[in-house]
Amino acid sequence: MNKTLTKPSFTSDYMEGAHPAILEKLSESNFDKTQGYGLDPYSESAREKIRKTCGCPDAEIHFLIGGTQANATVIGALLDSYQGVLSSDEGHINVHEAGAIELGGHKVLTIKYNNGKIHPADLGQWLVDFYNDGNHEHMVFPGMVYISHPTESGTLYSLDELEEISSICKSYKLPLYLDGARMAYALACKENDIQLHDIARLCDVFYIGGTKCGALLGEAVVIPNPRLIPNFFTIVKQHGALPAKGRIAGIQFDTLFSDDLYFRIGQAAIHASDRIRKWLRENNYRFLIESPTNQIMIILENEKLQPLAELVEYGFWDKVDDTHTAIRFATSWATTDEDVDNLIEALMKI
Amino acid sequence: MNKTLTKPSFTSDYMEGAHPAILEKLSESNFDKTQGYGLDPYSESAREKIRKTCGCPDAEIHFLIGGTQANATVIGALLDSYQGVLSSDEGHINVHEAGAIELGGHKVLTIKYNNGKIHPADLGQWLVDFYNDGNHEHMVFPGMVYISHPTESGTLYSLDELEEISSICKSYKLPLYLDGARMAYALACKENDIQLHDIARLCDVFYIGGTKCGALLGEAVVIPNPRLIPNFFTIVKQHGALPAKGRIAGIQFDTLFSDDLYFRIGQAAIHASDRIRKWLRENNYRFLIESPTNQIMIILENEKLQPLAELVEYGFWDKVDDTHTAIRFATSWATTDEDVDNLIEALMKI
Amino acid sequence: MNKTLTKPSFTSDYMEGAHPAILEKLSESNFDKTQGYGLDPYSESAREKIRKTCGCPDAEIHFLIGGTQANATVIGALLDSYQGVLSSDEGHINVHEAGAIELGGHKVLTIKYNNGKIHPADLGQWLVDFYNDGNHEHMVFPGMVYISHPTESGTLYSLDELEEISSICKSYKLPLYLDGARMAYALACKENDIQLHDIARLCDVFYIGGTKCGALLGEAVVIPNPRLIPNFFTIVKQHGALPAKGRIAGIQFDTLFSDDLYFRIGQAAIHASDRIRKWLRENNYRFLIESPTNQIMIILENEKLQPLAELVEYGFWDKVDDTHTAIRFATSWATTDEDVDNLIEALMKI
Amino acid sequence: MNKTLTKPSFTSDYMEGAHPAILEKLSESNFDKTQGYGLDPYSESAREKIRKTCGCPDAEIHFLIGGTQANATVIGALLDSYQGVLSSDEGHINVHEAGAIELGGHKVLTIKYNNGKIHPADLGQWLVDFYNDGNHEHMVFPGMVYISHPTESGTLYSLDELEEISSICKSYKLPLYLDGARMAYALACKENDIQLHDIARLCDVFYIGGTKCGALLGEAVVIPNPRLIPNFFTIVKQHGALPAKGRIAGIQFDTLFSDDLYFRIGQAAIHASDRIRKWLRENNYRFLIESPTNQIMIILENEKLQPLAELVEYGFWDKVDDTHTAIRFATSWATTDEDVDNLIEALMKI
Repeated sequence: MNKTLTKPSFTSDYMEGAHPAILEKLSESNFDKTQGYGLDPYSESAREKIRKTCGCPDAEIHFLIGGTQANATVIGALLDSYQGVLSSDEGHINVHEAGAIELGGHKVLTIKYNNGKIHPADLGQWLVDFYNDGNHEHMVFPGMVYISHPTESGTLYSLDELEEISSICKSYKLPLYLDGARMAYALACKENDIQLHDIARLCDVFYIGGTKCGALLGEAVVIPNPRLIPNFFTIVKQHGALPAKGRIAGIQFDTLFSDDLYFRIGQAAIHASDRIRKWLRENNYRFLIESPTNQIMIILENEKLQPLAELVEYGFWDKVDDTHTAIRFATSWATTDEDVDNLIEALMKI
Repeated sequence: MNKTLTKPSFTSDYMEGAHPAILEKLSESNFDKTQGYGLDPYSESAREKIRKTCGCPDAEIHFLIGGTQANATVIGALLDSYQGVLSSDEGHINVHEAGAIELGGHKVLTIKYNNGKIHPADLGQWLVDFYNDGNHEHMVFPGMVYISHPTESGTLYSLDELEEISSICKSYKLPLYLDGARMAYALACKENDIQLHDIARLCDVFYIGGTKCGALLGEAVVIPNPRLIPNFFTIVKQHGALPAKGRIAGIQFDTLFSDDLYFRIGQAAIHASDRIRKWLRENNYRFLIESPTNQIMIILENEKLQPLAELVEYGFWDKVDDTHTAIRFATSWATTDEDVDNLIEALMKI
Repeated sequence: MNKTLTKPSFTSDYMEGAHPAILEKLSESNFDKTQGYGLDPYSESAREKIRKTCGCPDAEIHFLIGGTQANATVIGALLDSYQGVLSSDEGHINVHEAGAIELGGHKVLTIKYNNGKIHPADLGQWLVDFYNDGNHEHMVFPGMVYISHPTESGTLYSLDELEEISSICKSYKLPLYLDGARMAYALACKENDIQLHDIARLCDVFYIGGTKCGALLGEAVVIPNPRLIPNFFTIVKQHGALPAKGRIAGIQFDTLFSDDLYFRIGQAAIHASDRIRKWLRENNYRFLIESPTNQIMIILENEKLQPLAELVEYGFWDKVDDTHTAIRFATSWATTDEDVDNLIEALMKI
Repeated sequence: MNKTLTKPSFTSDYMEGAHPAILEKLSESNFDKTQGYGLDPYSESAREKIRKTCGCPDAEIHFLIGGTQANATVIGALLDSYQGVLSSDEGHINVHEAGAIELGGHKVLTIKYNNGKIHPADLGQWLVDFYNDGNHEHMVFPGMVYISHPTESGTLYSLDELEEISSICKSYKLPLYLDGARMAYALACKENDIQLHDIARLCDVFYIGGTKCGALLGEAVVIPNPRLIPNFFTIVKQHGALPAKGRIAGIQFDTLFSDDLYFRIGQAAIHASDRIRKWLRENNYRFLIESPTNQIMIILENEKLQPLAELVEYGFWDKVDDTHTAIRFATSWATTDEDVDNLIEALMKI
């Protein structure tokens, strides 16, 4: 067996397995025989807990495997053939999903990102401009809006912003879809004023991320109004997103939504990232973007990249200029105080 | 928690969790930090073991999650836009994947199935007829051939048949793709004369099924010639089939291909199904189809369906006539001798 | 310039240009400047005449260029992503459109053809079977029904059959779409009891063929209920089916629906095919299928194929057995009495 | 019949029918019977003339109907499933084709336009950045480059620019595709130094526009290397782009490429646009963009829009600021000296 990473790793939040409680539950239930395709009692129990937590008692909930898959399936289900999905130009679906949305036949219509987010005013203006354009019948119609919370940059929408976006969407009859791949880390931030029941109230579809928040893998797609998408089960199947052993994801979400585990996972990561952020601020590091969640982007002199890489694992983010580079530290439920100490020590050394 | 199934279950081979050795390995490796997207050492170790077992040292191997996803991804990668995939009309891709292949833009071209299989002569004739048709340039071109081993009916190709199909494919320059969702159960049959290295030699792409053969989930897609599909990694991503925690599947296949576990899993299931088959034969049951693998289809009088269902779980397969129905018993690695005893006892009672 | 065909040609109904009245009208209007994209007064006049003829005063009507394009556009507009289109297995969309429907993401679900048609009872049974199948949620859902009139074999639905199919469609909420590529030839048959206003009443969308019925090119897609498909204009554009000079088709349909030209074109062809059919019957030729329209399929001894081909052009249809072949004679508005005389003479010679 | 436009019209170059020579030829050939699907001698003659004019004696040439259709068909044929097409962000395929490219499964990858064009340096930089991005395997790969000549803004590439773009494409193995919807107007400009044989030498596929250059409709897709796209005929059919009466387009292109008609059509339009441009310059009008072809964009005070519209038809182009709007005058082969006089007179009045 090759060696695995031995340096403290802040590369991303999917570098380890699952929260131990999840593995325990998988072992405990291992020999139960249940129906396939998510029709098992574990998945049903997980659904019930999510419905309760989100305050949407009628919600239809499906457990999918991975964010790109969830996005492609939901967006394919919500759009008519001639419609596209509005997204920030930095949106994951626009940049890092290898054309999964286009493979499904739809254009990603972009709005210039603003601190990682779609600014409600920009969304409103885009829609006014579109319908004012005399040629808009020759163009891709907007059919829905995609946002992420936290965003790809680790920033957060405020409740006011989400209310405003939701209200614009309603007035244009555009379903609003929220990608919550890293939802746990938003919920654990003191800066966050959006709770799951707000999301359930303001969005038409959203997913609660498991893979990056302590599960082996799995994302819970929530449709508060169960009449919104007829035959979504079949649509999931068509997208290759219906695991025969659906319970594998169900058991994990059942565990994540027991005893506040999902929230505790977020808190552990934020506790770690807050310590790092504090130290960086006190030591006058430049941030690429101000983000309160588990992703911290700082700008480093290029000559420090290699020395730091010898001590800790981190993510390369972006070239800033000829002499500077943005790098990312991501924490997770598994980041220990010792990991943080090691990171700070490493930064002090270089 | 709702109750799980308590009767002996022969509904399918994906009713329980994973082989305990897999859960053990997941727990053992849980806190290692590794790279994502299948670039971790566990996945690499699994690949190396599969390459060795299949005798294809250069093979490109990717771990996907689920058969429909694997099929859609591979078929999408192999076909040009104007080509379709040749399949038995009972092929999984033609019937039970909710149009995943068509969602990717391709027609499934069908050949009448013959004992669950494509008969080589039928394939040859189809191709002769196609190219003889004066209008074939107005039709979907055949671009590849899809077979499954074991088939959807539980039957097996002979090595001679596979050689013949492969040779037809080569002469028409059609890649041959083999769906091995239940491969372990073929490999464990004494009637089977096709080994993994034959498949690697005769097929252009194939997948070794994990989900239905003892894993939590996961399928290993093997491309013996690594130059066959450029940028397959990106194609996998585009199909939403690239889990961030790729190691979850990698660890499972590393375990399955250690100490012959994959073969032992098959043997356990075939041991059980052989016992059942023997008893059924001795008691003059009618078989819908003669299959040597872990799926047994028998034809039952309708009035016996309900009494049997009260004693054991089984799969409804097909209506045969107004008074008879075909049902399926599927065994798995987890089927115990006691389960088989219970099934036989139940059949004796009704 | 190479030589054009000089033998009498019965190969198909699209071997010549357009009815002279159409060319005249194109010349007459040539220097008028009008808006593009079908928003011109000629197109509007054509629409008004078609609405009147079909008895659907509110119908939305678009002029497209070609049958495959019309089919792909309408079917793409009517289906949700997970739905397929029900068709006879001989349906043009299933066989001779090179996978245009699948390119749009949809499966063609087939019903065994019956005298070229979908038998209403077969349609009903297919739907009962589908919804009774315990696995139907893993399968492509039927989303609409496609029929052609006349059929690809030249046969005709009766009004009773069309009423029955329409009623089944309504009860399953499946839009019914009728491909009228050769509509003029149906309307001119004395055996036909379906008028355009019946079609407009019983179908949700249909197209009136121009290309094969005397136009240079063009098909009129009629949607009796204009609220059925929102933004169909944009869908047409997305399918590359919106000619900038939309008037070219509009002017042609305006001419075809003036002075009963469309009906007269059909009558000329049927007059010719009736003469041929009568002679063939009197001379005991075997028909492949009994068709009353402009397509006649007979079965000929193979040794007569070449001698006949030296005297007239005809269409090769299908191999019947080792010594017989089915061939097709198609008449059109341009077939003259002399052409028919020559064909009969040729048949007498061989 | 509603009235057609009676004011001089500069709205676009597709407001009238066809050049009279085309109608004449259509009439003259009308009763010839020929094979369908572009296999007729007229189409073959047209191909031969185009091959000669372009200096590519082996070229495969197909006649399609409309630019969006040609673009979707060619781009669908050239790209693998995981690839996108590089285009200026103002490219017709990115803005005004209603998502036709995405319907075919492909993303349009955009480069900021520069005077209506892709600047070669920007293309080179985009490609360097893409392959330098550590995450590019999670992104849509560039699979080809799309440019138009003249551009959507009426500007022209220089031969040097085209050589440079072609050379970048070659070094990255990206096919270069040129959209020549308005090619005739480029060829007639004294500022243009790119001839058809340059395009045939430097591009992998291009189309010569008919619809906007004097034909009723039709675009000639030219593939200089006939082995580039196997089975393009079938791909055309699959896109609904293969008219049964293929000769309708063939006859038109045969006429356009006889007696230099295509070039004379361009010259007529440029003669008219040059007169307009000269007058506008002398009268100090502001141009939105400097374009030497048949499209002239000027910036007008908003209060002059309505008075001008009462005297001539023109195209609304874009809002410039709160008090100014860009409008377009397009000339065509049918623009007379009197039309130009009237336009100038109208501009003098307001």
